[in-house]
Amino acid sequence: MSWHRKHLLDIESLTAEEITTVLDTARAFKAVGERAIKKVPALRGKTVVNLFVEPSTRTRISFELAAQRLTADVINFSAEASSFKKGETLKDTARNLEALNADIIVIRHSATGAPHFLSRFLNASVINAGDGAHEHPTQALLDTFTIREKKGKIAGLNVTILGDILYSRVARSNIWALLKLGARVTLCGPATLVPRVFEQMGCRVTYNVEEAIAQADIINLLRIQHERQRQSMFPSLGEYSSLFGLNRARLALTKPDALIMHPGPINRGVEIDSEVADCERSLILEQVTNGLAVRMAVLFLINGGKGPQEVATN
Amino acid sequence: MSWHRKHLLDIESLTAEEITTVLDTARAFKAVGERAIKKVPALRGKTVVNLFVEPSTRTRISFELAAQRLTADVINFSAEASSFKKGETLKDTARNLEALNADIIVIRHSATGAPHFLSRFLNASVINAGDGAHEHPTQALLDTFTIREKKGKIAGLNVTILGDILYSRVARSNIWALLKLGARVTLCGPATLVPRVFEQMGCRVTYNVEEAIAQADIINLLRIQHERQRQSMFPSLGEYSSLFGLNRARLALTKPDALIMHPGPINRGVEIDSEVADCERSLILEQVTNGLAVRMAVLFLINGGKGPQEVATN
Amino acid sequence: MSWHRKHLLDIESLTAEEITTVLDTARAFKAVGERAIKKVPALRGKTVVNLFVEPSTRTRISFELAAQRLTADVINFSAEASSFKKGETLKDTARNLEALNADIIVIRHSATGAPHFLSRFLNASVINAGDGAHEHPTQALLDTFTIREKKGKIAGLNVTILGDILYSRVARSNIWALLKLGARVTLCGPATLVPRVFEQMGCRVTYNVEEAIAQADIINLLRIQHERQRQSMFPSLGEYSSLFGLNRARLALTKPDALIMHPGPINRGVEIDSEVADCERSLILEQVTNGLAVRMAVLFLINGGKGPQEVATN
Repeated sequence: MSWHRKHLLDIESLTAEEITTVLDTARAFKAVGERAIKKVPALRGKTVVNLFVEPSTRTRISFELAAQRLTADVINFSAEASSFKKGETLKDTARNLEALNADIIVIRHSATGAPHFLSRFLNASVINAGDGAHEHPTQALLDTFTIREKKGKIAGLNVTILGDILYSRVARSNIWALLKLGARVTLCGPATLVPRVFEQMGCRVTYNVEEAIAQADIINLLRIQHERQRQSMFPSLGEYSSLFGLNRARLALTKPDALIMHPGPINRGVEIDSEVADCERSLILEQVTNGLAVRMAVLFLINGGKGPQEVATN
Repeated sequence: MSWHRKHLLDIESLTAEEITTVLDTARAFKAVGERAIKKVPALRGKTVVNLFVEPSTRTRISFELAAQRLTADVINFSAEASSFKKGETLKDTARNLEALNADIIVIRHSATGAPHFLSRFLNASVINAGDGAHEHPTQALLDTFTIREKKGKIAGLNVTILGDILYSRVARSNIWALLKLGARVTLCGPATLVPRVFEQMGCRVTYNVEEAIAQADIINLLRIQHERQRQSMFPSLGEYSSLFGLNRARLALTKPDALIMHPGPINRGVEIDSEVADCERSLILEQVTNGLAVRMAVLFLINGGKGPQEVATN
Repeated sequence: MSWHRKHLLDIESLTAEEITTVLDTARAFKAVGERAIKKVPALRGKTVVNLFVEPSTRTRISFELAAQRLTADVINFSAEASSFKKGETLKDTARNLEALNADIIVIRHSATGAPHFLSRFLNASVINAGDGAHEHPTQALLDTFTIREKKGKIAGLNVTILGDILYSRVARSNIWALLKLGARVTLCGPATLVPRVFEQMGCRVTYNVEEAIAQADIINLLRIQHERQRQSMFPSLGEYSSLFGLNRARLALTKPDALIMHPGPINRGVEIDSEVADCERSLILEQVTNGLAVRMAVLFLINGGKGPQEVATN
């Protein structure tokens, strides 16, 4: 059960054992985060580059803090960077960063497959921080970490993912991780955003929100991704909210121990009402905290760490 | 005379003793800044987030350097950050930063009271780096530090603040600090920008600049804040300069040991002439240097430091 | 052969011995970069400010990484910074950075002479990271470092610089460095971009690209600098490419051991074809790697290091 991969490109190609190694390593790093001094020297002298061609403050900061906690040097390279404006290709930019001795490149890009593309020619390690509507593997890892921590297991749980599935890399990565770890996954949302093709992955698809949430142990709400929808896929935000938003009335239909998740940033009053977002069954902020531990684990493993047994001694 | 506060939200609620504790601690940190190696490990493993919703390179860099000198990890979160663009509320942004284990959030915001608002629900410490036209407490602390260092005391001094008082958080914070420490405060500027209501705070208000500066030990010039004036409060910059600008002729009317201050950035030829800004009685650059020591002191105290006696051993 | 300068403003004023000291020191730092832990404590507690008034992600990151490797604290100050927007002068901005205890200011500016200007009034050290169309000394140092590493010497080599010489600070700095170290320099490009006046520096000027490259040991291609040309100096990019671009056919006319350089970012298909850029005779990515070592050397020497003999013990 030790880690051997150089890159983290997606969840689809990971085994259940590899996912579990990340989660166990993250658990060890979460304990580090509760110490008075939250830093370990595991990546001292290593350079991590956040290559965020599509902007994301939230995920960028989480990776930046994770790298700092591991004592790495961190460079932020943003979408507005001048070399892109000067017409440089992504390949040349990445090879330049590698020539600057970057050890790990964390890439977010609007194009599906951009991280895989880099991994084919770079000697540096590549971590996918979200590629188009394809995958967002560290989000799925932090979500499964949070579920496992709260429920003690993943296998056998009913997990409902509600919202814009079609354009969501968070949904795709979560589906892969949950199915590999033995959960039952139900997808629900407007028919335009939840095509039946997801049944071929092994999910249940339903368009009846009450039925989707009735037996769920976990309800994972997705943000309505305006920026990734080429045309309006549903009449209005108000209609989305009334048909699919998780409000107090719908929460009353769920099992009493069903937990609520959301990758953030939340749209209060759209996919989730404030009283649900802030209730004690909401895990939204714990997901953020766990994201830091999961990203420390991923950076640590990608850099050559073998698993959780090595964390304590670092 | 030890510090017990978790936040620094304003000067209004501080006691004279608390202000003095900050100034004494800053003096100890200023001595650290004169060593060959200017760093101390006091905040090692702590995370400071600069949450600058209103941009300010100058103050942000001062806090960033202060945190680095204390060996903290620093994250910069700017106004243009995508989660604000995605419609996230300030409350959710702040709670997310706290979930990322931020220990201290330094906030600048265009809305009065934003730091107080955060302090009501965060476990992290909050430092006000300027909120609207309300307060800018670290600026007042560095100004009083500078005055005390040069004049040996604050009590009994005549301090004149000249310029746009109405829209100035620097003025408000300075007035509170100076009055608490026993100075006499005179305010002067165009009547539209210096309403008589400030007399209720205990200040003297005059519209005669020659009279305002004649007996002053300290003349603190404020920048004309174009960006915070909803409409033109005086006919033109040229008219402001001729009526209230500190030039060589007016400098000749002051006491020979009167000292000149300005929070920067200065508008040469508007509120201050170049020969005054660059003369030996100008403290403008010393204020900047002292700002670093004062912000180190505030971060140190907010993080649990008790006072100057602890600095040497850190 | 030890270093005594406080600033690095240009190549023109350096002696051959001083250039050699930088190159030798860079060689020692390149060896540090090949260790498992690539950091040295030489600049611990020092503050380096990247004052990039003209944007440049590539050079800024190279300096940022170099400073991090030397354990300095680094602050990035960008063109969009608010104090410039608020009307502050460059002189006041620089003096403010110095008042914040900046030890070294790395400046890029669109105005020729901006670094020299700062050096006349600052106590902090100044490094020119590119000033207008004047000089870019660290680029020339990394280029000569790369040539010396590959060819074992500089003296007696034929170096051809091809492209937009007139507006290129890279060309100017390279010409000075190469001539001081004893190379023969040939300049070639459109007549509008390669005026005969360069012959007075000691270069050979030709407008025949085949003749320019025939005897070259090194061919240094410059990027077409759209942003620095006030009007079009040649009919079109396509025409430039067909007349002066280095493609496979022209490469076949060169000596078999001629090496290809480019300061980046490259315009594939304009000044260089992809198969030339990516061939084994291309040093483009090695230049980037060497830039890190050269900038570490410059920061180290400017900070008081004497030469390569001191690197190992740091």
